[in-house]
Amino acid sequence: MVDLTAEITIKIPFQDVDVMGIVWHGNYLRYFEEARAELMDKIDFSYFEMKASGYAWPVVEAQVKYVKPLLLQQVVLVRAKLVEYECRLKIAYELFDAESGERTTKGQTTQVAVDMQSNEMCFASPQVLLDKLGVSS
Amino acid sequence: MVDLTAEITIKIPFQDVDVMGIVWHGNYLRYFEEARAELMDKIDFSYFEMKASGYAWPVVEAQVKYVKPLLLQQVVLVRAKLVEYECRLKIAYELFDAESGERTTKGQTTQVAVDMQSNEMCFASPQVLLDKLGVSS
Amino acid sequence: MVDLTAEITIKIPFQDVDVMGIVWHGNYLRYFEEARAELMDKIDFSYFEMKASGYAWPVVEAQVKYVKPLLLQQVVLVRAKLVEYECRLKIAYELFDAESGERTTKGQTTQVAVDMQSNEMCFASPQVLLDKLGVSS
Amino acid sequence: MVDLTAEITIKIPFQDVDVMGIVWHGNYLRYFEEARAELMDKIDFSYFEMKASGYAWPVVEAQVKYVKPLLLQQVVLVRAKLVEYECRLKIAYELFDAESGERTTKGQTTQVAVDMQSNEMCFASPQVLLDKLGVSS
Repeated sequence: MVDLTAEITIKIPFQDVDVMGIVWHGNYLRYFEEARAELMDKIDFSYFEMKASGYAWPVVEAQVKYVKPLLLQQVVLVRAKLVEYECRLKIAYELFDAESGERTTKGQTTQVAVDMQSNEMCFASPQVLLDKLGVSS
Repeated sequence: MVDLTAEITIKIPFQDVDVMGIVWHGNYLRYFEEARAELMDKIDFSYFEMKASGYAWPVVEAQVKYVKPLLLQQVVLVRAKLVEYECRLKIAYELFDAESGERTTKGQTTQVAVDMQSNEMCFASPQVLLDKLGVSS
Repeated sequence: MVDLTAEITIKIPFQDVDVMGIVWHGNYLRYFEEARAELMDKIDFSYFEMKASGYAWPVVEAQVKYVKPLLLQQVVLVRAKLVEYECRLKIAYELFDAESGERTTKGQTTQVAVDMQSNEMCFASPQVLLDKLGVSS
Repeated sequence: MVDLTAEITIKIPFQDVDVMGIVWHGNYLRYFEEARAELMDKIDFSYFEMKASGYAWPVVEAQVKYVKPLLLQQVVLVRAKLVEYECRLKIAYELFDAESGERTTKGQTTQVAVDMQSNEMCFASPQVLLDKLGVSS
């Protein structure tokens, strides 16, 4: 089975920080998105491959736990890990201060496959995902 | 006790919609934020009053359940309801298609009070919030 | 000829304000976009009508002059005015403090028609736009 | 005099792309911001140094020329170059497709110094900037 973890490093940009001097909580979902894109790229199943396979994968649930605030110019490691794939695509995220290694944030997103022809939600992940992951169905 | 619900109406703008033609999931936290601002304004406890009272209220948890996708130019009612205030500020959100009344989204955010002098998290909501809400401690 | 001006009112939300307490300069293009959408809606030529007519109208130039900073919770009037339409779609924007009427911001965007079939840029605005505007070509 | 150019590389993320499949025009100011931060960091005059020196540097004008659209997952080089510093801070930006080297975008931002004590705009750049740049006044 392929590696199910990906990491990116970001440096908190000016526009993400609020008047309190910390990252506005809604911006974290962008950090998650970029780490997820890296992960999906790794398993050769990024947006264009998803689309070509005939399935959309909308996010049906997202959750963030803000343990420590992130600050302007802080360098942050964002780790995305695929934790469930059989019926839905569940990815867990962790953010760490790049210097101290301290965990600042946890989160997860859940996506389900939608057949783009019928517009129906799938109750099990389509074969194409299992193939990408190198697991048998 | 004061009214603990507020509503805003938004029309989904172009820049919030992704290449699939639906609102990118991270944008919903902005809709929540604007409904929460309306609610906090109603109880006279918006950002400036919070700051004047000596407490910051960082979001420590956020959750979104995407039931139905939102589309470009869709008119959406966003309702914020204060559901917990004793130890933390928990607000629940619901989004509805303004025309059909169908619920499209659910979510919640949790905030805790932080004493800005000591930078310590409070284990109970400070008196100022209870006063704003018109409840006795 | 139809009315070529539209106005929206916004209240500056928390997430648009930076650590200096003023709106981050990149956010103004969203305010412009929402006023432009209102204007295009007025002439019945919003995104869906554009698309149905076979033309895309990408923005090829944008400019903003920040005269006075905008502040958290400030109520702002955003006015969009169509100032050129023959060869390209040029819209001028002005922002005003809703209370004092003082102008805080100026800007403009320029869009050109692109024939979605040939993917070629048009050197004159297509007839469909002139029809929407109620002008003869 | 110090090097007045900085470059960053970005990969266009999902949330920046609109329903037409191209980057929404307002997002480019974020790319500019991140390249400018890199540049200011290089001359040791990023946000915290600016603040410590007693001056704010609000953006008073921004301009973008969109030559070619940017696409999802495209790798883009963003170059920021300081082109004027005596009376105001003027930075020019160019974006290039990282693979072909083709220029896709041009732009510029202008900032002026504001004395944070008096809240007055400065008609000449304060000595601290000239010192950082290694030029004599």
